[in-house]
Amino acid sequence: MPTFMDIHHGMVGISPEGLAEAHAADLALQAEEGVTFDRAWADPVSGNVFCLSTGPSKEAVQRVHTHAGHPADEIFEVPLEV
Amino acid sequence: MPTFMDIHHGMVGISPEGLAEAHAADLALQAEEGVTFDRAWADPVSGNVFCLSTGPSKEAVQRVHTHAGHPADEIFEVPLEV
Repeated sequence: MPTFMDIHHGMVGISPEGLAEAHAADLALQAEEGVTFDRAWADPVSGNVFCLSTGPSKEAVQRVHTHAGHPADEIFEVPLEV
Repeated sequence: MPTFMDIHHGMVGISPEGLAEAHAADLALQAEEGVTFDRAWADPVSGNVFCLSTGPSKEAVQRVHTHAGHPADEIFEVPLEV
């Protein structure tokens, strides 16, 4: 199953609770698309949030994020990892 | 110690060996700056490489990458994580 890194912009000021709620929303919906969200990191200053997932396709990852109310701005398949 | 996500652009066509060599160069130099590179993910199609690290500052992370010959294009402190 491919791995993806996606980026959300514009989340300036995101709180720990906000990140946890957004991630929980993804986790609650991911099964319908066969996606597994692994980890997420947020920078409240720049407003960037990075999500690491595995799933069948970029489109499947985006459908989960969109259903959860926060579509990603960029999604990259990352087949290489160290 | 803060956590950072940095991004390198323009690494189109990066190979598994190329990513492993670049990461090894970071690991060999990181102690001089008190940085610990944890993981890296690469997308050979878009040319984006994402590196996750901990260290004293963005500048310290960048000094390691620059010393290794591959300065990052963007570095974000990511104090929030799930």
